[in-house]
Amino acid sequence: MQMNRSASLARLLSARSIAVVGASEDLVKPGGRVIASLLLNNYSGTIYPVNPGRSMIQGLTSYPSLTALPDAPDMVILSVPAKDVEASIRDGLERGAGGFVVFASGFAEKDAAGAEAQQRIAALVKARGVPMIGPNCLGVMNGSAGILASSTIVMRGRRMLAGNCSLISQSGAIGTYWLDMMMNAGHGMAKWLSTGNEADIDVAAAAAYLAEDPDTQIIALYVEGIRDGVTFRRAARRAAAARKPVVVLKSGRSAAGAIAAASHTGALAGADDAYDALFTQFNICRVESMTAMVNLTRLLLTQKVRPGRRMLVLSVSGGAGVLLTDAAQAVGLETPDFPPESKAALRAILPDFAQPQNPIDLTAQIVADRSMLRRALQVAVDSGVFDGLLLFVGGLSELAGELAEALNAIVRPWGRPCAVVWQAVTQEAVRTLNEAGLPVYDEIPEAAAAMAAALGIAEGWERKVIPAEDPSPRPAARVVHLTEQASKTLLAEGCDVARPRGILLTSADGAAARLAELRAPLVAKLQSGAMLHKSGHGGIVLHLPDAAAAADATGRLLALARERGLDAEGVLVEEMVGIGLEFVLGIRDTPVFGPMLTLGRGGVEVEVDPDVVMAYLPLGPAEIEALIQRLRVAPLLRGFRGRPAANVAGLAEAVHRICEFYLANPELREIEINPLILDREGRVLALDALIARAGGEHG
Amino acid sequence: MQMNRSASLARLLSARSIAVVGASEDLVKPGGRVIASLLLNNYSGTIYPVNPGRSMIQGLTSYPSLTALPDAPDMVILSVPAKDVEASIRDGLERGAGGFVVFASGFAEKDAAGAEAQQRIAALVKARGVPMIGPNCLGVMNGSAGILASSTIVMRGRRMLAGNCSLISQSGAIGTYWLDMMMNAGHGMAKWLSTGNEADIDVAAAAAYLAEDPDTQIIALYVEGIRDGVTFRRAARRAAAARKPVVVLKSGRSAAGAIAAASHTGALAGADDAYDALFTQFNICRVESMTAMVNLTRLLLTQKVRPGRRMLVLSVSGGAGVLLTDAAQAVGLETPDFPPESKAALRAILPDFAQPQNPIDLTAQIVADRSMLRRALQVAVDSGVFDGLLLFVGGLSELAGELAEALNAIVRPWGRPCAVVWQAVTQEAVRTLNEAGLPVYDEIPEAAAAMAAALGIAEGWERKVIPAEDPSPRPAARVVHLTEQASKTLLAEGCDVARPRGILLTSADGAAARLAELRAPLVAKLQSGAMLHKSGHGGIVLHLPDAAAAADATGRLLALARERGLDAEGVLVEEMVGIGLEFVLGIRDTPVFGPMLTLGRGGVEVEVDPDVVMAYLPLGPAEIEALIQRLRVAPLLRGFRGRPAANVAGLAEAVHRICEFYLANPELREIEINPLILDREGRVLALDALIARAGGEHG
Repeated sequence: MQMNRSASLARLLSARSIAVVGASEDLVKPGGRVIASLLLNNYSGTIYPVNPGRSMIQGLTSYPSLTALPDAPDMVILSVPAKDVEASIRDGLERGAGGFVVFASGFAEKDAAGAEAQQRIAALVKARGVPMIGPNCLGVMNGSAGILASSTIVMRGRRMLAGNCSLISQSGAIGTYWLDMMMNAGHGMAKWLSTGNEADIDVAAAAAYLAEDPDTQIIALYVEGIRDGVTFRRAARRAAAARKPVVVLKSGRSAAGAIAAASHTGALAGADDAYDALFTQFNICRVESMTAMVNLTRLLLTQKVRPGRRMLVLSVSGGAGVLLTDAAQAVGLETPDFPPESKAALRAILPDFAQPQNPIDLTAQIVADRSMLRRALQVAVDSGVFDGLLLFVGGLSELAGELAEALNAIVRPWGRPCAVVWQAVTQEAVRTLNEAGLPVYDEIPEAAAAMAAALGIAEGWERKVIPAEDPSPRPAARVVHLTEQASKTLLAEGCDVARPRGILLTSADGAAARLAELRAPLVAKLQSGAMLHKSGHGGIVLHLPDAAAAADATGRLLALARERGLDAEGVLVEEMVGIGLEFVLGIRDTPVFGPMLTLGRGGVEVEVDPDVVMAYLPLGPAEIEALIQRLRVAPLLRGFRGRPAANVAGLAEAVHRICEFYLANPELREIEINPLILDREGRVLALDALIARAGGEHG
Repeated sequence: MQMNRSASLARLLSARSIAVVGASEDLVKPGGRVIASLLLNNYSGTIYPVNPGRSMIQGLTSYPSLTALPDAPDMVILSVPAKDVEASIRDGLERGAGGFVVFASGFAEKDAAGAEAQQRIAALVKARGVPMIGPNCLGVMNGSAGILASSTIVMRGRRMLAGNCSLISQSGAIGTYWLDMMMNAGHGMAKWLSTGNEADIDVAAAAAYLAEDPDTQIIALYVEGIRDGVTFRRAARRAAAARKPVVVLKSGRSAAGAIAAASHTGALAGADDAYDALFTQFNICRVESMTAMVNLTRLLLTQKVRPGRRMLVLSVSGGAGVLLTDAAQAVGLETPDFPPESKAALRAILPDFAQPQNPIDLTAQIVADRSMLRRALQVAVDSGVFDGLLLFVGGLSELAGELAEALNAIVRPWGRPCAVVWQAVTQEAVRTLNEAGLPVYDEIPEAAAAMAAALGIAEGWERKVIPAEDPSPRPAARVVHLTEQASKTLLAEGCDVARPRGILLTSADGAAARLAELRAPLVAKLQSGAMLHKSGHGGIVLHLPDAAAAADATGRLLALARERGLDAEGVLVEEMVGIGLEFVLGIRDTPVFGPMLTLGRGGVEVEVDPDVVMAYLPLGPAEIEALIQRLRVAPLLRGFRGRPAANVAGLAEAVHRICEFYLANPELREIEINPLILDREGRVLALDALIARAGGEHG
């Protein structure tokens, strides 16, 4: 089904004939601009202007209606008011259109009537399996086919460049700013899609198409909210399998931004950290600005990137070399020093006041001794201790040609990535380097960030295990919550989660004798579906010194339940456990991306300064262990300053069993274990648990 | 003395006559370029080329030596090899030179002989109180006087612009890139100093001068390491008093960067976090790149900035408005919504599909209805809920003139700051806005960061108490460490720091009887100057259940000391304290900036994820309380989720007493209290303490 959608999108984006309904001579009108843009870009297919009032438009034969076309158009652009869209879609479907691009606004983003109209047109195209982009979109483009099927003013009078990066944007305007930045940097694009209201084709479907598109090497996304999480996960997995980097700028990170994003596209933005978890897990690189996206894209498009973070830093200014080293380390790159034999070789090459160290300060001597760069670089390459090059140049624009030649002579055969920062430089010099395939940045942290992000993507391909399946979000349902006792019993039976020794008492009579087998101190906890959060409601008594005290507490808790009219299963008396490391585990369904594991440090201090990781199911034990190692507290778990290491593998195995249990039981909606304890003996224990499941039946 | 230095620097930087030793016709030579640059910049003073081999240079009368000059030059530029510098300085001093600028390298940055030569020339000028810039520097500039007293190639053939921002740079090259960026943004500079090896004038002395310089409104710094902390602190305080923003780019944040910085200038870089603490306390804004510095400077130079973080976000693209909102919140700006009456007013102004909310999406309607921006802005201003404006525009370059007019018509009278992001725009449109006094940025996070930084400086002027005194770093000395018992006694007597109840025993005989008055559990700790860190060395026994056990432990610890031949004061037996909140306090002298307080959360978990604040003495109780509130754990102290608030004021008072005690006792070198406890009753207790003081005398 998705394959069909991708194939039909491929037909639309490579259209050999394009009909423009609402075609015009007037370039102020979208229906005029889009035809002019197609003509200016030498679109080699057939353009069918459709306008009942004219026989020729911009030198092309015009047709009175879609049904009057001589051939079935691969793409129909609807540049007509919202009220006329539905009729045009019916005509287009009748004429066998390959797909629609709907510019008109005034649909779901406007009001309830608009939303209804949008549902009607979506139903029409979905019934026929014909893709529709929009409504309320800026159109689509294909850089190599001259298809500038967009009314954007930013591209008015400009020719697209063909390239290997594609963009899907949930904001048409932002999509055009990206295009402007890419073109200014000398790069073109493969495909460009402004998805608008996403009545039919959404960002997930478009991404699935680009993952298959042979022209697309890099997928760039501007996202406000994803509707179809399962399709998006599949698309991301396919892109990773095809070694196509996916880079995303997602808005709505802040609470205020999320509200604004929701009102912008009408999409439910959802919790931003659920997106972060998805991007991290599926090796999608999130950036914080369009500039960062373009910076990264330029490096990926021109450099060979493979895992390895050890950077050689070369500079013509000592100060800039230091700043570049700082910037590299700040984003997790390394700047190892040279081995002794390389230092000796460098001493013979560098001016006598320059230190043979990383960063290398070539000084302004680079002008006087123009082979110095090449020779120093060769020493670095031969040393075998570097995985990439960061170069800073300031001024010296006249060196551009030689610099490009020297870099390419050494760096290309080396097969490692290179990024150049050049300040106080002419645009011409930058262009010379760019044209030689070297990405030039105007600021130090930007180059370091692009390098780190590119290497991060390459590392992800090597190291990350992307889930092979995409469990659908479970249907919304009324849920019932199990008591702690029932939850722990289910977890113990279902996935072997240990719990403290304990006894469920339904009466205080004879309790002390039954409790004698437990080792004090004890804790007594009322078990009632009407009091799921016991602390703060008087439902829990801690630090009971012996069985008698526990029996007494049991009686009081049962009395409390009776007083308040709470239906109670009884009182659970347990041994108190000497806490080692305290965690919080949650598994719940997210409405878009399916079941998600949340694992974090427990305790009150972490509430003000959370230390949490999240990932989507299914997860293997190794993935869970890697997740745990991403906690800020991880160094402590590994055995910090001579302390014993914690049983992280055991914790990961227990968490894995709980995840599998959740997946195997479709009626579950939430598992929460808080705290989950890793004690000093390495045992994993659920001290408290709460399970929610759909429906009201007993299990 | 510093006033004299500032006055003598003022003479140098405003020189009415400049001698250039090593003057040349050849523009490839520094001594040729600097004269050409002075001439090109219409320097109105007298230029004296000095070159024994020629009578005319670049159309100017040349002199055989400095002693042959007709007048005492205000500035002598030495563009001669290192070996000839000393003789020229002697000549210049003889002729009454106002100061020297020494380009030559080959001094301390080269080798030991160079360092000696540098000491000799420094001694010469210091003895006469004549300032010297360099050696190994790129010179100085005065934008309004045409003094381009630099050999920089970046400025070759270019005219400086006069302006109100001054730069001091410890890297000449980086200073020139800054200049290039400022000029490209349409801004000039007041003074520019490349300090080179800082044999005489260092960054602190230069900053002290700029704090007094009437042309300088903003002080920008590129710093690798500060030598004279006391002078720098004074300069920063004077700049703050004069409401001159100080912006710093400091390199060496990373460990590798710090090493590289040290080898670059020969300056001891020092711990980067000690700089961070200084910058924060003295309201110096640290940026991470030259671009960020210039971005901030542009806003400060053109906008009225006063405290208040509530931003109106206006955009012509819904998506960009969301991104701008995210970016604003990410840097601590706020984006409150409109009050209801303003929403009603906005509804009448905005297109019917736009929401009357912050961010406002003006949409492309801004082109059709050009008064919309002005009217919407007026509603926002009248609402009284905003402190500044962030505006996003994309494309629409043709609107530049009208936009500038509309913004200035509303924003200027409002007296609040405005920053504009404009993407996919012509350079001409940007220039139009810049010339109208509106700072235009090409990326969203950059504008938000500049705004937040500018407001942070303004807030600091209102809120920050900069220390009124600058205690000098204490002289390095051999230190003796006091035992825990002696340290606690000194702290109790000297500044009333409470400690757990305890008894110092020198023998186990009769110990149980003496210990009976203490409440178990007890702890026994060996007191020996030879075992200052007791845990891990067997010097401490915890959780002793009664006096008998403590007496027994005392005997064993004393035996241990005898076995190991340790000189011991005895064994300190104390009541164990139920720990509430655990802190670590340290006061120690930093070699550059003087005594510093470090206060952090205690405990093992914080060791892997530190939560620490630092500030320099003297500090008042209110400042210390503000420091504590900067800890990540602060929300917990304020009473988190219904828990009782901690006695932060009591903690701050105790810390203040300790700070004052340190300041009052010049023989102290370090006080460490670890842990310092704030117990559940709000008492502050030193559980362990260690004091170091100079010399070997008893106190």
